[in-house]
Amino acid sequence: MDTKQYRYDGQNFDISKAPTFVKDSSADLKAIKEQIRKNVKKIRDAQKMMYAQHKYGVLVVFQAMDAAGKDSMITHIFSGVNPAGFEVANFKQPTSNDLRHDYLWRIHNSMPLKGDIGVFNRSYYEDVLISRVHPEIVLSANLPGIDGVGDVDEGFFQSRYEDIRNFESYVSRNGYLVLKFFLHVSKEEQKQRFLSRIDTPEKNWKFSSADIKERQYWDKYQDAYEKAINATATKENPWYVIPADDKWYSRLIVSNILTKQIAKMPLEYPTLDPQEQKQLATAREMLENEDK
Amino acid sequence: MDTKQYRYDGQNFDISKAPTFVKDSSADLKAIKEQIRKNVKKIRDAQKMMYAQHKYGVLVVFQAMDAAGKDSMITHIFSGVNPAGFEVANFKQPTSNDLRHDYLWRIHNSMPLKGDIGVFNRSYYEDVLISRVHPEIVLSANLPGIDGVGDVDEGFFQSRYEDIRNFESYVSRNGYLVLKFFLHVSKEEQKQRFLSRIDTPEKNWKFSSADIKERQYWDKYQDAYEKAINATATKENPWYVIPADDKWYSRLIVSNILTKQIAKMPLEYPTLDPQEQKQLATAREMLENEDK
Repeated sequence: MDTKQYRYDGQNFDISKAPTFVKDSSADLKAIKEQIRKNVKKIRDAQKMMYAQHKYGVLVVFQAMDAAGKDSMITHIFSGVNPAGFEVANFKQPTSNDLRHDYLWRIHNSMPLKGDIGVFNRSYYEDVLISRVHPEIVLSANLPGIDGVGDVDEGFFQSRYEDIRNFESYVSRNGYLVLKFFLHVSKEEQKQRFLSRIDTPEKNWKFSSADIKERQYWDKYQDAYEKAINATATKENPWYVIPADDKWYSRLIVSNILTKQIAKMPLEYPTLDPQEQKQLATAREMLENEDK
Repeated sequence: MDTKQYRYDGQNFDISKAPTFVKDSSADLKAIKEQIRKNVKKIRDAQKMMYAQHKYGVLVVFQAMDAAGKDSMITHIFSGVNPAGFEVANFKQPTSNDLRHDYLWRIHNSMPLKGDIGVFNRSYYEDVLISRVHPEIVLSANLPGIDGVGDVDEGFFQSRYEDIRNFESYVSRNGYLVLKFFLHVSKEEQKQRFLSRIDTPEKNWKFSSADIKERQYWDKYQDAYEKAINATATKENPWYVIPADDKWYSRLIVSNILTKQIAKMPLEYPTLDPQEQKQLATAREMLENEDK
């Protein structure tokens, strides 16, 4: 699979041209699941070294429209990794305590430990996505210079994009691999998934009438995603735009990218210097002499 | 008092020329204490608005050589402020959990709430001060590309200065007034204070023989301070270099600067819009009718 086609590291992302559906005709469901299983095994091996070394961490960010499959993506591509070195943070509406801090405060707080893999299910990108579609929610953060919706202007978002680029560049330099995925579904596919949530009793809990309301802002969200991705896709921290109308195939793509990028990390088991090696020998001797 | 002379917002700080001792001959101890008491009253009034508005916060950073008077500074200039809206964070040696994150993680985590005044007793500046004098401690953070002391080079510090400038600029834009104070003592004055700690039984606990060891690196620390201040003194977030050989006078200077800068913040009690005003009237009516 050539995953390069999904990678954006400049300002050339046109959301209307990015596919929401691709399917490799050669890939059947059984083969996809088998490949994901193999990938998980590789990630587990990487986790062991990452933990021993505690020099690097991985941050995986998922952003998407409602019903694009973020939750099931996380379930399926990470089932089987070592849960002791794995964390998921869900960023819902900010709490009143969050709102008494800067918007990246809760984010920074939730960064995975170095040595671990952390997933952000939604993220700081909401602060340039939902905030662009509904600028009135920015008012609840009580920001200097933001006294009305008119102040939530292009300059405001440019400044947040810069915050985000700086933050990602900073955490990268401090040992984090940042992988950002936008699960790209079509409007028609979202409709089908909402209908399925409405018609299937055990899926009813997932449905909220607010989702239908948000769907009316579809075009505005698409525009906000296009702008945010173009402003924050860099060579150092690219975005991956994943066709998400086919759930299993989208999982395969993400799983492949993840595994490939993690494999590129300079992970290794720490080696001991000669003096520490000597201590090992002494320790062996002490253990062996214990029962004498 | 003209406090402008203590302010640095460019790259013109020469530590060897900055005074460690000034004393206004007109200021006697009683007058100084009285002025600080008046300042505290002003800060309390500002705190009330800050809390009601929860739009702005204040971060006060204190950095200094050992025995420069940071702890007693905090005690004396803040005694009397509302403790419910006041926080002090002491940044000692990073814990093992801190070291499994990026170096600004524990800092960001400890940012005061908007509406509060927070003090950092030592801060993220240690990461460009003690780290410059003892580059070997950087190794314990397990950073990518830092495999030996030789990698802790000028580029490394320039990159941290940039992190710090970005961080301070970001929190400023999000509502924080950042006030950075370097309490500047002379080497001779530090010696006298150490001797006093040694000779006074109730001060013995403050003394550690490690302090004498660090004192041997005096010149290196002075150089590290000069570089760090020049690299991070900006128009937006200046440094204040305070002559600290006279303890009470240094407290007066800091207290005056603090009060003056807080007074410049656009604090005000939130006003209600016409609809909320109406609700007040309704509430009054309900209260008054309660006993009828």
